[in-house]
Amino acid sequence: MERHVPEPTHTLEGWHVLHDFRLLDFARWFSAPLEAREDAWEELKGLVREWRELEEAGQGSYGIYQVVGHKADLLFLNLRPGLDPLLEAEARLSRSAFARYLGRSYSFYSVVELGSQEKPLDPESPYVKPRLTPRVPKSGYVCFYPMNKRRQGQDNWYMLPAKERASLMKAHGETGRKYQGKVMQVISGAQGLDDWEWGVDLFSEDPVQFKKIVYEMRFDEVSARYGEFGPFFVGKYLDEEALRAFLGL
Amino acid sequence: MERHVPEPTHTLEGWHVLHDFRLLDFARWFSAPLEAREDAWEELKGLVREWRELEEAGQGSYGIYQVVGHKADLLFLNLRPGLDPLLEAEARLSRSAFARYLGRSYSFYSVVELGSQEKPLDPESPYVKPRLTPRVPKSGYVCFYPMNKRRQGQDNWYMLPAKERASLMKAHGETGRKYQGKVMQVISGAQGLDDWEWGVDLFSEDPVQFKKIVYEMRFDEVSARYGEFGPFFVGKYLDEEALRAFLGL
Amino acid sequence: MERHVPEPTHTLEGWHVLHDFRLLDFARWFSAPLEAREDAWEELKGLVREWRELEEAGQGSYGIYQVVGHKADLLFLNLRPGLDPLLEAEARLSRSAFARYLGRSYSFYSVVELGSQEKPLDPESPYVKPRLTPRVPKSGYVCFYPMNKRRQGQDNWYMLPAKERASLMKAHGETGRKYQGKVMQVISGAQGLDDWEWGVDLFSEDPVQFKKIVYEMRFDEVSARYGEFGPFFVGKYLDEEALRAFLGL
Amino acid sequence: MERHVPEPTHTLEGWHVLHDFRLLDFARWFSAPLEAREDAWEELKGLVREWRELEEAGQGSYGIYQVVGHKADLLFLNLRPGLDPLLEAEARLSRSAFARYLGRSYSFYSVVELGSQEKPLDPESPYVKPRLTPRVPKSGYVCFYPMNKRRQGQDNWYMLPAKERASLMKAHGETGRKYQGKVMQVISGAQGLDDWEWGVDLFSEDPVQFKKIVYEMRFDEVSARYGEFGPFFVGKYLDEEALRAFLGL
Amino acid sequence: MERHVPEPTHTLEGWHVLHDFRLLDFARWFSAPLEAREDAWEELKGLVREWRELEEAGQGSYGIYQVVGHKADLLFLNLRPGLDPLLEAEARLSRSAFARYLGRSYSFYSVVELGSQEKPLDPESPYVKPRLTPRVPKSGYVCFYPMNKRRQGQDNWYMLPAKERASLMKAHGETGRKYQGKVMQVISGAQGLDDWEWGVDLFSEDPVQFKKIVYEMRFDEVSARYGEFGPFFVGKYLDEEALRAFLGL
Repeated sequence: MERHVPEPTHTLEGWHVLHDFRLLDFARWFSAPLEAREDAWEELKGLVREWRELEEAGQGSYGIYQVVGHKADLLFLNLRPGLDPLLEAEARLSRSAFARYLGRSYSFYSVVELGSQEKPLDPESPYVKPRLTPRVPKSGYVCFYPMNKRRQGQDNWYMLPAKERASLMKAHGETGRKYQGKVMQVISGAQGLDDWEWGVDLFSEDPVQFKKIVYEMRFDEVSARYGEFGPFFVGKYLDEEALRAFLGL
Repeated sequence: MERHVPEPTHTLEGWHVLHDFRLLDFARWFSAPLEAREDAWEELKGLVREWRELEEAGQGSYGIYQVVGHKADLLFLNLRPGLDPLLEAEARLSRSAFARYLGRSYSFYSVVELGSQEKPLDPESPYVKPRLTPRVPKSGYVCFYPMNKRRQGQDNWYMLPAKERASLMKAHGETGRKYQGKVMQVISGAQGLDDWEWGVDLFSEDPVQFKKIVYEMRFDEVSARYGEFGPFFVGKYLDEEALRAFLGL
Repeated sequence: MERHVPEPTHTLEGWHVLHDFRLLDFARWFSAPLEAREDAWEELKGLVREWRELEEAGQGSYGIYQVVGHKADLLFLNLRPGLDPLLEAEARLSRSAFARYLGRSYSFYSVVELGSQEKPLDPESPYVKPRLTPRVPKSGYVCFYPMNKRRQGQDNWYMLPAKERASLMKAHGETGRKYQGKVMQVISGAQGLDDWEWGVDLFSEDPVQFKKIVYEMRFDEVSARYGEFGPFFVGKYLDEEALRAFLGL
Repeated sequence: MERHVPEPTHTLEGWHVLHDFRLLDFARWFSAPLEAREDAWEELKGLVREWRELEEAGQGSYGIYQVVGHKADLLFLNLRPGLDPLLEAEARLSRSAFARYLGRSYSFYSVVELGSQEKPLDPESPYVKPRLTPRVPKSGYVCFYPMNKRRQGQDNWYMLPAKERASLMKAHGETGRKYQGKVMQVISGAQGLDDWEWGVDLFSEDPVQFKKIVYEMRFDEVSARYGEFGPFFVGKYLDEEALRAFLGL
Repeated sequence: MERHVPEPTHTLEGWHVLHDFRLLDFARWFSAPLEAREDAWEELKGLVREWRELEEAGQGSYGIYQVVGHKADLLFLNLRPGLDPLLEAEARLSRSAFARYLGRSYSFYSVVELGSQEKPLDPESPYVKPRLTPRVPKSGYVCFYPMNKRRQGQDNWYMLPAKERASLMKAHGETGRKYQGKVMQVISGAQGLDDWEWGVDLFSEDPVQFKKIVYEMRFDEVSARYGEFGPFFVGKYLDEEALRAFLGL
């Protein structure tokens, strides 16, 4: 029995990404002696400065966010050229004195990806390369959520012909382009890496844009019929000073 | 391949809302020295008075509730003109001495919204403006629940033409209007902001009205076929005196 | 576009109900000095005696149960004429010394209801009134479970005409009547109040009857096609002496 | 409107069963003074010896298992003629000194049942009675899992005519009979008693038989179309000596 | 009524496998005196050396991994000829001093299997035997995930004729073969043993290959229509030196 298998989309991989969501145990933090807190702060500050140096050297990017609501207090977002430096960043944070006041709530490991339904992309082209190695904005807000493409009865993304998928993604891309200049979008793939198939990061100076773009895109057939969405996390970018203030120091 | 995408509903955004549900660790609270509890109370009282002053200055609104059942003990409900003052309110509470006796159980971040299926609304009109910046009643009860519109096989809200959606919402609105004077309703959108698409707050002097309105609305086609409902939280408004009594002071 | 909405069932509301499931931390309880345990017991006993006095005065009802399995150790079941006295009962228990050895595992807030598919019921009739203000038996066993009516594809309860619903409920009632004298049943509605639409309490002198009635009813079309069932909790009624023995005093 | 309700299966009830899964807090256990551990062991040993005496007197059966993986460390399996002695066994264990090192992870309360699609069984017949009061093997392995019969769209077990159900169960029984002598099977019903409709215990001298029988049965139409399966727990029987060794004494 | 039951696939069983995922309590670990940490390390090192000796003797295999993200910190992967030595490995680890700094997050018990849709395999053939007793690579990365075959409406794997299943699996195997030399794959069956029907281990020197193979296979009809996937765990192999470094020693 001959079976038709739809051709997978051509995909290029870029930097590896870890979203590392942590809870701050405020009670333990504020019960600690001020000196212990200042020591922990110094170590954390040093760690973040190393991340900044890596970013300046083109070896990755990072951002720290104050997350709204109970799902997390802080998001440590790191991008690196491979899994090894990402594991190192995660372990360094976990081993730090500051981490003794942190619990873990969620994380997502993925790899920045660019897909093309038509032909393979050139990874060195000036359109492609910066998109595979994105720089996290150093202000504003982030919205992160993981998602799947549905495989349910008549609504099975992976059974669609490549042309159909291309047409659906193109319409979706047009909705996205309306937000150019207002919302920056980074797509990372997580098949074989984490519990959802993709991670989506939206960056904006105005969190209401997250609501507007996600709402409008929900009417695109690719979302309406084929999108399955995980938890949504929204955070505000914290520079060194703002992070220190958040910690009550 | 040309694809028809239903036109999204025109939507206006108002205040940002945080439902911050907390558990009280009664054992630790009552084991603390009376003086520590009184100090924590004074700080909490001061925080709430600041919230009241913001409300009086038209810069937001707030309410504190005793929540029935195991899902939470207290709900701190805050509305503000943007995400930043909301994050500040959350962090101030988390950093307070009282928070050392609190655990977190749930939260929901959303933005008050008014939708119109027909034409864009005027945000400054006397009908619209107060609905975008609602004042939390200072008595009675609240019922909060998050919800989605279903996208499942034949029951896919986002695949319906705008006219069909308008007709379904209109019938739903008529059921709601029967409860005018008995139940006040605030709808906030959370697409791109939290795990459900909308948050619903019902305020009433009689909690049985929550049961009656939700039951009756369940027969509206828009709920019967398209509504997916998250957890329901019911709480009783606590003024300063009632909050102090709840804390056993 | 004219839409047909099925008429909701006529419903009368009675007492408010809180199922308050707690876990006993046996390790901490038995590590406490005997005197502390005896003091906690005296306070708990006093609380229960107040509940009994309220019951004797027709102001509510109550029962305490030893729950089988890991989902809970104790169920504190309270019925009151409104939400306020229920919140007061819950808070009094939570503030008691005994609660320092308790964790919370589940709860359900609902309101006793009587529905009639045909015409409104008279709340003062001798058939109706006792059913709206039921008295918890002071012996035997309880089975509690929450449930929804399904809204899934072709199996959508809320899209059925009122006559169809009436016919299905009537057949279901006939199965229930076979257990008259063996199983007492209390239905409470929780739409707008808790995460499931209804709560069901079965009371019997023989827990095997819970198995028999639920099994037989599962073949009624209303259960087979439209019933969605939450967790099941089974407990044995504890009078003062049995509760003291359970606590190892 | 006349409705056809399929006739429920004739069912006989036997012993009540509690699967009580516990986690051992190895850190606290090994930090306790040897004397405290020996005392806890003596008390536990005494408890198990009482269970053995009850078994010898025909008043129940029991088994203790080392469970593989993180879902539990120990399974205390008890069968008794009614719920009261089962609650007593559970409470005795919970009140014991050994329980201070245990956490709870799962449990299942059910009643051994024998069903016949054709005619009522005679509970005193030599075929029936031992099946209603089974003796737990004192060696080998156990596999426990809870299950439901599906009620989903076209695959609704409870809407099938009794004859159809009988035919499906007969084919299923034939698959089971192939494993006679290799796998002993005990079915217990939990409708109205716990969160799944049935519990299944398989006992074997070879855990690979659990894999083989469950795999083969999955192709029976009754499993393929109508079976919904909960968590699977596998454990190795521990006699007194093996239990002591597991505890590092 | 005669019923057609599709013939189950011929299956051979090999080694028993335990994936034992643990969380490291970094705060407690780094608060412990260095001497206690060194003692715990020595004991752990000894345990791992015993595992290595067993592997060298052909009595099993093992690997320890640093897991990315919050789902686990360490994976202890063990394969043995039977369940007993696997239980012994798990208990030895749990009883070790190092385990006092570990929490458990997930585990999976399964048995390596080789299936043939056509005819029974010969367990002693040079093609079969090494596949039933695989050796864990001592470098690179692992990707582990559990999965089910779907039984939902029209997409019911267990209702398909054996020929149809064979054809689907053959196409799937061809996709896998494209990754020969880049990804090593071990399939283990867990029906009757754990909560999912199969476990899949992928081993590679490049974690991006996990993304590529899982993405490409998702378009195979057997995955698109019949695959249901659990959590995905990715880890980096730690030899003795790397494990010591991860522990900050």
